[in-house]
Amino acid sequence: MRSYLTSLSSSSHRHIFTKFRRSLSSHPPPTVTMSTEDSLRRALSDKQSTIDARGNEIRQLKSFGASKSEIDEAVKALNALKLEKSSIESQLKASISGEGNGSAVSKEAFRQAVVNTLERRLFYIPSFKIYRGVAGLYDYGPPGCAVKSNVLAFWRQHFVLEEDMLEVDCPCVTPEVVLKASGHVDKFTDLMVKDEKTGLCYRADHLLKDHCKDKLEKDLAISAEKAAELKHVLAVLDDLSAEQLGAKIKEYGIVAPDTKNSLSDPYPFNLMFQTQIGPSGASTGYMRPETAQGIFVNFRDLYYYNGNKLPFAAAQIGQAFRNEISPRQGLLRVREFTLAEIEHFVDPDDKSHPKYSEVSKLEFLMFPSDEQMSGQSAKRLCLGEAVSKGIVNNQTLAYFIGRVYLFLTRLGIDEERLRFRQHLPNEMAHYAADCWDAEIESSYGWIECVGIADRSAYDLRAHTNNSGVALVAQEKFAEPKEVEKVVITPVKKELGLAFKGNQKMVVEALEAMNEKEAMGMKAALESKGEAEFEVCTLDNPKVLIKKNMVSISKEIKKEHQRVFTPSVIEPSFGIGRIIYCLYEHSFYMRPSKAGDEQLNVFRFPPLVAPIKCTVFPLVQNQKYEEVAKKISKSLTAAGISNKKDITGTSIGKRYARTDELGVPFAVTVDSTTSVTIRERDTKEQVRVNVDEVAAVVKDVSEGRITWADVLQKYPAHVSASADE
Amino acid sequence: MRSYLTSLSSSSHRHIFTKFRRSLSSHPPPTVTMSTEDSLRRALSDKQSTIDARGNEIRQLKSFGASKSEIDEAVKALNALKLEKSSIESQLKASISGEGNGSAVSKEAFRQAVVNTLERRLFYIPSFKIYRGVAGLYDYGPPGCAVKSNVLAFWRQHFVLEEDMLEVDCPCVTPEVVLKASGHVDKFTDLMVKDEKTGLCYRADHLLKDHCKDKLEKDLAISAEKAAELKHVLAVLDDLSAEQLGAKIKEYGIVAPDTKNSLSDPYPFNLMFQTQIGPSGASTGYMRPETAQGIFVNFRDLYYYNGNKLPFAAAQIGQAFRNEISPRQGLLRVREFTLAEIEHFVDPDDKSHPKYSEVSKLEFLMFPSDEQMSGQSAKRLCLGEAVSKGIVNNQTLAYFIGRVYLFLTRLGIDEERLRFRQHLPNEMAHYAADCWDAEIESSYGWIECVGIADRSAYDLRAHTNNSGVALVAQEKFAEPKEVEKVVITPVKKELGLAFKGNQKMVVEALEAMNEKEAMGMKAALESKGEAEFEVCTLDNPKVLIKKNMVSISKEIKKEHQRVFTPSVIEPSFGIGRIIYCLYEHSFYMRPSKAGDEQLNVFRFPPLVAPIKCTVFPLVQNQKYEEVAKKISKSLTAAGISNKKDITGTSIGKRYARTDELGVPFAVTVDSTTSVTIRERDTKEQVRVNVDEVAAVVKDVSEGRITWADVLQKYPAHVSASADE
Repeated sequence: MRSYLTSLSSSSHRHIFTKFRRSLSSHPPPTVTMSTEDSLRRALSDKQSTIDARGNEIRQLKSFGASKSEIDEAVKALNALKLEKSSIESQLKASISGEGNGSAVSKEAFRQAVVNTLERRLFYIPSFKIYRGVAGLYDYGPPGCAVKSNVLAFWRQHFVLEEDMLEVDCPCVTPEVVLKASGHVDKFTDLMVKDEKTGLCYRADHLLKDHCKDKLEKDLAISAEKAAELKHVLAVLDDLSAEQLGAKIKEYGIVAPDTKNSLSDPYPFNLMFQTQIGPSGASTGYMRPETAQGIFVNFRDLYYYNGNKLPFAAAQIGQAFRNEISPRQGLLRVREFTLAEIEHFVDPDDKSHPKYSEVSKLEFLMFPSDEQMSGQSAKRLCLGEAVSKGIVNNQTLAYFIGRVYLFLTRLGIDEERLRFRQHLPNEMAHYAADCWDAEIESSYGWIECVGIADRSAYDLRAHTNNSGVALVAQEKFAEPKEVEKVVITPVKKELGLAFKGNQKMVVEALEAMNEKEAMGMKAALESKGEAEFEVCTLDNPKVLIKKNMVSISKEIKKEHQRVFTPSVIEPSFGIGRIIYCLYEHSFYMRPSKAGDEQLNVFRFPPLVAPIKCTVFPLVQNQKYEEVAKKISKSLTAAGISNKKDITGTSIGKRYARTDELGVPFAVTVDSTTSVTIRERDTKEQVRVNVDEVAAVVKDVSEGRITWADVLQKYPAHVSASADE
Repeated sequence: MRSYLTSLSSSSHRHIFTKFRRSLSSHPPPTVTMSTEDSLRRALSDKQSTIDARGNEIRQLKSFGASKSEIDEAVKALNALKLEKSSIESQLKASISGEGNGSAVSKEAFRQAVVNTLERRLFYIPSFKIYRGVAGLYDYGPPGCAVKSNVLAFWRQHFVLEEDMLEVDCPCVTPEVVLKASGHVDKFTDLMVKDEKTGLCYRADHLLKDHCKDKLEKDLAISAEKAAELKHVLAVLDDLSAEQLGAKIKEYGIVAPDTKNSLSDPYPFNLMFQTQIGPSGASTGYMRPETAQGIFVNFRDLYYYNGNKLPFAAAQIGQAFRNEISPRQGLLRVREFTLAEIEHFVDPDDKSHPKYSEVSKLEFLMFPSDEQMSGQSAKRLCLGEAVSKGIVNNQTLAYFIGRVYLFLTRLGIDEERLRFRQHLPNEMAHYAADCWDAEIESSYGWIECVGIADRSAYDLRAHTNNSGVALVAQEKFAEPKEVEKVVITPVKKELGLAFKGNQKMVVEALEAMNEKEAMGMKAALESKGEAEFEVCTLDNPKVLIKKNMVSISKEIKKEHQRVFTPSVIEPSFGIGRIIYCLYEHSFYMRPSKAGDEQLNVFRFPPLVAPIKCTVFPLVQNQKYEEVAKKISKSLTAAGISNKKDITGTSIGKRYARTDELGVPFAVTVDSTTSVTIRERDTKEQVRVNVDEVAAVVKDVSEGRITWADVLQKYPAHVSASADE
């Protein structure tokens, strides 16, 4: 009970809230070592002072009527100084734009190339485009929809099926009582400011962030101290209160970007879409901001379904909704998105995992909080060692980190651009035991795509307390155990006299003490006659408990079972973000055969590719078209998505079209008995009999054989025609 | 333009609105032949009159002081009459409860058995149960979720993949402008009445329907005429206006069922969940009531993606939302549900379908509107004949009817309880060319589960007009064609003088005339100097057009292409309803081996079954458990959902548990070299080597071989133990 009481009195933000909110903020906090940029700023400011001084000297020389040669000499020296200054400026500019890794310009250009291809080939479409769209809403067009469907199918195979999870599917419309219990109604907010004249709304932290970044990037004249201050603001941005944010906005004179009008003070805006359930207007509901609550409220039934045994995991894939104040960053910050969430329920006293050994030898980039705080960077660690050294809290958490690593890399995420970052103490909810985010590097920086959190018993306790239904597990003992138990008996009469209206809260807090706290109080009462005590639910939490207000004793009891609230370990996947990063990691350009243009390619693994295979006749010809039709039909019957292309376009153009959709294999019909299969990235071709081709494409698409196997088994085909 | 103008002035309800609204209403209208029930009501009322008359006679006899024997004789006759009356009453009761087919009581009992099993085994769970739930919201628990996922995967294979459809995935949150254009903001309503004291809300038609049904079922004393009137009300219920409904409610003295308070007049309540997009409060949005609009607004991009060619189909699977006034009928009438919709775009001048011949020979139950109106019942028809006789409007519509039939029966819907019912003229939107519903018979009656409508050009025109973006297709002519075209030139000055502020609407209506209308007006103007004309957008639509107000002529023009709005044929699937009907059609009970209890079985085909196979050791034994684990692992790797059961429960009980989940195959490990596979419905068993078993189960689960093939290939196993 204790942790529940304290949890109410501090932030009850769920890990996932922050996870999907602050992805682009600049953690980890910068360390205070002297950077090149700092020294350049100092040099620049010194140089400017010298220039100013010399300028003054020249003016004095002139007013004192110094000789022309003397003045000329001084001007020449001044001009030299100015040249030096401008050289420092150039270095500083280079140093700023070179921050992070890679040039900002080339990242921007790369992103544009990816996004142009995605939009032109309808991987996605801004929703309701013909009505000028709605910020933060996107459609998946045909290839995007197929990619999403493949990612979700693989997620089901990799997690639900292989881990025997209980999948559920709950509605998006959620009554207020559920989201009140989870803390969303009160706490799921962003701070907003309004243009005082037009009423236009902005996210307060975005404006402050933009201001600081702009100053740092464009104003070379600011001092190294000022630069350090701005960087500090960026580092602590997520921790600023409404008052602190408001003060900074005032201090920096930040105005509405569109109108230059002044801004209101920041105030919280709840990010849930609100609605009414039923016609009466008396029943408020929200579109769920995450899918997890649907699982928690069903814990009792799911536990029963699992034969009243722990551990087990439940999973859910579904839409979630967040009414962002002003969505930015394209597909990464949207108002409606697909989440895939797992809630793994486990005995808090035993977080070992039976399949742990299957992942413990994996090695990949990890970024523990200690390394972040001491200014180091992420490094390759062996998962098993991270657990044994206490860096990762427990085996089950580590097991899921390992499974997430396997999931993402099998999808095609580049493992060099994937890291697992531990939450810093200030990022983590007080009840959480440990949290790690799978972050993927994209042109926007490191993006949080999966959160893996050990949330302890917080969620089940919150719903137990609010619904009155005990969401607990039992462990039956083989034979009754004698247990020494602390018995805490508050004396309500005395407490009532001392605390009046607050009595109930004091009683609850006393009863919620754990053994150590209770025995500490007992000792204090016995030695001093009174004890200091904190009641987190009170406005003034510190109270003094006297000896006559509570009796504390240890008793031996026979118990037949242990009743406890399970801990929950929650891996939560932002499917749209994973897909967007996958697009960036899969995209590359290569010159056309003639060398006159750059062709776009997505190197999707067959598992993810929206279409597995194209089929086309080499030339327009009825016989070849018949064969193409037959092959296409047998592929379809085998469940392999494919596309015929019987246009008369040149074979090179047809390959280019399919490369741009990431189609891994192309079958070209150049005879009625055998055909060629071409692999997208190597452009290698083999020759296969017409009757075998569907089976070969199916096997290689579904990963039963590799392209290398195909190359070995079938004769290579060297193209005679101008096919690329 | 004409049809758009007229469409605005009459109901623009989409077919699908009514489809999912009125499923339980009593179409077709009853024919006016004399039924048994009618004649019994007449007999009962005659008998009552006779009894009343005889009662009066007896009172008169007594007052005139007649002899005891005379009075006794009369009383005896009266009692005989009363006996006859009560016999008629019994017959009437039987006749009423026997209406429809099958006894209402046994249907109710059957439904309870199905629903109890579904709820106990977590096929579904009332959402937010621990908070007392929300009417009309349900979760899918683990087996329900698996069934849904299987149904959707098959839908994708059967429609999207096999028909090369363009799948899209659009958000649920939809801005008002889109749903204003589609007609939902103005017309997507149900009529509601409020308890005048408590404010409780009811659907007006439900109250009237309940009143009429109650009277008919429970009040045996009403006259045959009154009964006929009530039946007529039930038949026309869906067509009653707010005023007519209100009048009936007053006439029958219907009050609030919960409080007996009086009711308000009926008024329209919009069924969309409303919300605000963004923080300003200035941008109203709704949760989409269907997925189709997301496809229509993307028509231009999808047409381009398809190489600017018709026909093509787009498809979407997703959540839809309807804020029902007072949801009833469990899983059939819910506030949030999954729709799978197809929009097939086709040239209105050519609705043939290239694959029509693949379905034209299918035969199944069809219920054309003529048969409904003449009081006949549904009958088996050959689809091809229905098209050639003009019963089904066109080949493409018929093609989809055939594909839907194949889809539903392959899922396991009983084809004897599946019919395709044509909409009656009064059910169909004025712009629709033809509509058929796939109706499945369940314990609730015939339920509309799929709507297949030819909606002509309505939707694309609506969005063209509202967005200003032309959603049209082009047909380029091989060489320019000379076309005779009607040119209509309104003379604005004269029209302005005559119609003042209404001038614009008259001009638009004149310009929107089709050729026939224009030539009719030209003839009238030439012969009479004036013509009557209807402008639907005016309050008083009838106007008089004079000769000087418009010039109409025919001109020859050279055209290079034809620009037109495609027609759309829309098959729309209510996935939750299909799944519920599938549960009822798959459920049966059989006695346990000992004969002491009835066991529940779902006879799902492997395609649909939530788990394909269970694996269990015959007895608790480490060697057998190892084998079971190995088999389960190889099944999982092959993507076959399976469940181990290593509890010590009797084998019979374990079979019963899996039968109740509809698991088609059970592997029992009774040796370390070979095991048995049992088929659920026949309870037959074969013996298969441990190494082969996963491949056999995969092949038979995925339909590559049948159980009969397995029986032939592997030796039968006759169980020696008490396994059932």
